[in-house]
Amino acid sequence: MELTPGLSRLRRLGGSFGEADRDTFKAVLGGIMQFGAECLDPINARGDAQGCHLVDGRVQLPAGYTEAWASYTAQGWSTLEMPVEMNGQGLPLILAAQVQEIIDGRCAAFGMLPVLVRSAAKLVAAHAEPAIREVWLPRLCSGEWAATICISEADAGSDVPRLRTKAVRDVDGAWSITGEKMWISFGDHTLTPRIGHCLLARTEAGISLFLVPNVIDDDAGETRPNTISVRRIEEKMGLHGSPTCALGFDGAKGWLLGEDGQGLQNLFVMITNMRLSAGVQGVGIASAAFDVALDYAHERRQGGAISAPAVHIAEHADVQRMLLESASRVHTLRSVGHLVAVQADLAAHEVDPTERSRAQTLLQWLLPIFKTEGGRCGFDVSSTALQVLGGAGYTREWPVEQYLRDARIATIYEGTSGIQALDLLRRQIWRGKSAGLAIFLEQARMDLDLVAGDLRAGACACYELLQDAATRLNEMRDAPREAEAGAGSFLELAGLAATGWMATRLAGMTSDTPEGRRLSASGRYHLLALKDDAVAVHAAAVSGARRIDLFDSLKA
Amino acid sequence: MELTPGLSRLRRLGGSFGEADRDTFKAVLGGIMQFGAECLDPINARGDAQGCHLVDGRVQLPAGYTEAWASYTAQGWSTLEMPVEMNGQGLPLILAAQVQEIIDGRCAAFGMLPVLVRSAAKLVAAHAEPAIREVWLPRLCSGEWAATICISEADAGSDVPRLRTKAVRDVDGAWSITGEKMWISFGDHTLTPRIGHCLLARTEAGISLFLVPNVIDDDAGETRPNTISVRRIEEKMGLHGSPTCALGFDGAKGWLLGEDGQGLQNLFVMITNMRLSAGVQGVGIASAAFDVALDYAHERRQGGAISAPAVHIAEHADVQRMLLESASRVHTLRSVGHLVAVQADLAAHEVDPTERSRAQTLLQWLLPIFKTEGGRCGFDVSSTALQVLGGAGYTREWPVEQYLRDARIATIYEGTSGIQALDLLRRQIWRGKSAGLAIFLEQARMDLDLVAGDLRAGACACYELLQDAATRLNEMRDAPREAEAGAGSFLELAGLAATGWMATRLAGMTSDTPEGRRLSASGRYHLLALKDDAVAVHAAAVSGARRIDLFDSLKA
Repeated sequence: MELTPGLSRLRRLGGSFGEADRDTFKAVLGGIMQFGAECLDPINARGDAQGCHLVDGRVQLPAGYTEAWASYTAQGWSTLEMPVEMNGQGLPLILAAQVQEIIDGRCAAFGMLPVLVRSAAKLVAAHAEPAIREVWLPRLCSGEWAATICISEADAGSDVPRLRTKAVRDVDGAWSITGEKMWISFGDHTLTPRIGHCLLARTEAGISLFLVPNVIDDDAGETRPNTISVRRIEEKMGLHGSPTCALGFDGAKGWLLGEDGQGLQNLFVMITNMRLSAGVQGVGIASAAFDVALDYAHERRQGGAISAPAVHIAEHADVQRMLLESASRVHTLRSVGHLVAVQADLAAHEVDPTERSRAQTLLQWLLPIFKTEGGRCGFDVSSTALQVLGGAGYTREWPVEQYLRDARIATIYEGTSGIQALDLLRRQIWRGKSAGLAIFLEQARMDLDLVAGDLRAGACACYELLQDAATRLNEMRDAPREAEAGAGSFLELAGLAATGWMATRLAGMTSDTPEGRRLSASGRYHLLALKDDAVAVHAAAVSGARRIDLFDSLKA
Repeated sequence: MELTPGLSRLRRLGGSFGEADRDTFKAVLGGIMQFGAECLDPINARGDAQGCHLVDGRVQLPAGYTEAWASYTAQGWSTLEMPVEMNGQGLPLILAAQVQEIIDGRCAAFGMLPVLVRSAAKLVAAHAEPAIREVWLPRLCSGEWAATICISEADAGSDVPRLRTKAVRDVDGAWSITGEKMWISFGDHTLTPRIGHCLLARTEAGISLFLVPNVIDDDAGETRPNTISVRRIEEKMGLHGSPTCALGFDGAKGWLLGEDGQGLQNLFVMITNMRLSAGVQGVGIASAAFDVALDYAHERRQGGAISAPAVHIAEHADVQRMLLESASRVHTLRSVGHLVAVQADLAAHEVDPTERSRAQTLLQWLLPIFKTEGGRCGFDVSSTALQVLGGAGYTREWPVEQYLRDARIATIYEGTSGIQALDLLRRQIWRGKSAGLAIFLEQARMDLDLVAGDLRAGACACYELLQDAATRLNEMRDAPREAEAGAGSFLELAGLAATGWMATRLAGMTSDTPEGRRLSASGRYHLLALKDDAVAVHAAAVSGARRIDLFDSLKA
């Protein structure tokens, strides 16, 4: 974490950031590891087996979730990166992200909830009217109340603007919301006495954002349930401890957040957080899976000369390859996540407007990359860990198959990989004129001298290929299909470059400690094949629509 | 199928092969589709949900399995490729493989059983003494009795020679078997009155193969259970309808199959069949997943101009890419499987000894490639299909998440991908002096003229890179770690070349039918990127141990 570009600048901003020194980081991470061991390790496999159930109209979570949430809030984890003026601890987002990663590695299903609550708190802080804000913000920050994000509908998933839920203004200034929302994580539960649904609905002015509590106070000061019902809980491949609900709103009472008609724009505050979190979740699961595989490889014995005892499978070349590949993915992508988090803080808090704007621009460039590649990493590394464990990994005796199932959603929700790739192409390259890429390359190249020889050459080549691909895709602006055919590969190439940058910083580490050697090896492993990897992905990115034009022939 | 190299030669051998013309193929495939729709479609998801249970010491299969097996045998599916002299239909293995693929696409868990029974029948046919053979062979061929393959033990998985199960000769010429076997698919059930366990055990002469029935006849002609117990059923990620058992043998009575001490060699008859089947299973699941995704993409609407109705997601470039990639994997790997099956028949039945030997050599080259790449394809294409379906794919409303879970084991059992890669390197390149590769390249290059331009250049480049990699890996013989570091990538490169060869035959198709266009597009899609893909994989194959030498730094 200490290697993250911009972190020292962030600390120099002073205040609570200035106090967040290396020792603070260590203490916080030690604390969350302990929380994880005590509260999350016992509920991960059990929650997967038990799942969530709809009982008398309410969602019942797996055993232990209530206690885990109570400890989580009592220990103050929910206030970590909330500003001091909101009774938060004002710690940098990078630390909150690393805390979240550790939670996700211990129990990704539980980890969904704090992300939602924090995202909602940011929405309320940014857009709620004072009366709402005063009631909700401290309770969301403390975790006393929970929240959801209600965007998707049956026919409006990736295609948000087609949503049909309607909001009509009531006489009392509140709104009446009617419609059905899908894919609502923690859409209901009894962990907290109140849940605030941050919901997009259509008004006469366009699409607007609302806060719709599951319980409302009537004029007599009594509370009553709002007219919201849980239609069903989805049966999913994984994340069984996280109830994914379809919610019906039947004239439910809600309050506008931000300006009427500005719902999509207002949501942006939250989307940064959600995309960062999806990537972090992938890295967290990957890291947990890698740890299991590494330990297993040093315990399980198979193979070697039949005249001697079997050797540890960690001695086999192919097992070493799988473990190094995994370590390299985890460490380089974790570093990209840290980079994203620091840029987000700088974009919000940097005093120099030029630097603030540069951080914002770099953040926008990195977000779709980290969301996609971090999310993918959770699935891929889990699958590799399963391969290392062999038949054992395919059984529920080991946690790896659950990791794989839990991780599979990360490249789908919060914008599929296809959507992220289009974001990078259309927003960053076409509309943004590659401004984010330019800042990225400038900063990445400043670190090239940390490594030499093949390592340096690998990173150099990758940056050049990325720049070339961006230039070519920009030239294809008027033939969007040609460019879109390569958008996924372009994002992958940008991912290789982002992890490549972080790899130069890891590979350049000279500290002769076990951790230093581990990080340095992870960086070097990535850089040694970076040129070959980048050449292939570059070719796919710029090859145009010739291959996908074959699609018409697939139809029956 | 008709395009498969060697098929016409096989038919020219006459007999039952000669009669297996295009119309026979069509009729058989039509029949198995109907069997699948009637008997397998209803049990696939249900079996996944119900799983198998141990009740009073016996394995209880999910509902519908008994009826499905009864129909399967009654309709004669089990006798398909059994020789006419064993009351079989004597049809070519390519047809049996395609039948198996269709079964696996409908219900991969059920599909495990016929593969086991057929493999055991081949073992009994090749190695059993006449008295055993007369009793068992017709009943295994007809499916009246079932069988298992018992190889693995807790400390002898990939490392078979370390097995500890013991066999001691009894006075009556039978043997007494004691030990515990793991990962035994369909290790117990009540579908058939008798199950024959084909089991490896240690004798004074070495490792030997035995037939150990679960029920034996005593001297009075009464039957009694053999001393075999089901210790547990593994709880797995997928294939829940296929009970994976740990079996205890406590002085169980068995009979030697083949010579004492020749167990590993004798097993070889079966390993061809099991590896072919693992690849076929992958292709079958991939094909089913692709079909779901293709249909979904033509029904689900998302995106497009907001002023118009949403477009089918099949119109989005990235969705087209995913579907073409999947189609290309399925069609080219299916063709490789057909190629393997034809070579296996030629290796057994070809009259010209040179040609027979060539077929055997090519078969040995292709087996580890098809086992690995076919198996991988099931998982990868299922995951891609899940991505096409998005959030829906992550739920149990759709079959795709089950496909993914079912498919994940294929690169582990019957020899992990790592083991297959070492087989290719050590047996084929080092010991076999690349004889299989030479035949492969000779035949593949004869088809180069079926395509032109970029397509031809892609295949050409891939073959040259494969040849170059083989030469270099051969030069590393004396530094095995250097070569083993690239063994996995070398197998992948060999896979690109094998699918590349089949792709030239598909791409060269000129029949202007929907199916012809689909196959041709699938081949062309593969060839258009083949050179770029092969260059990257080649680099990884020949790069030596420099990257994996970083492994020592990973230790804590």
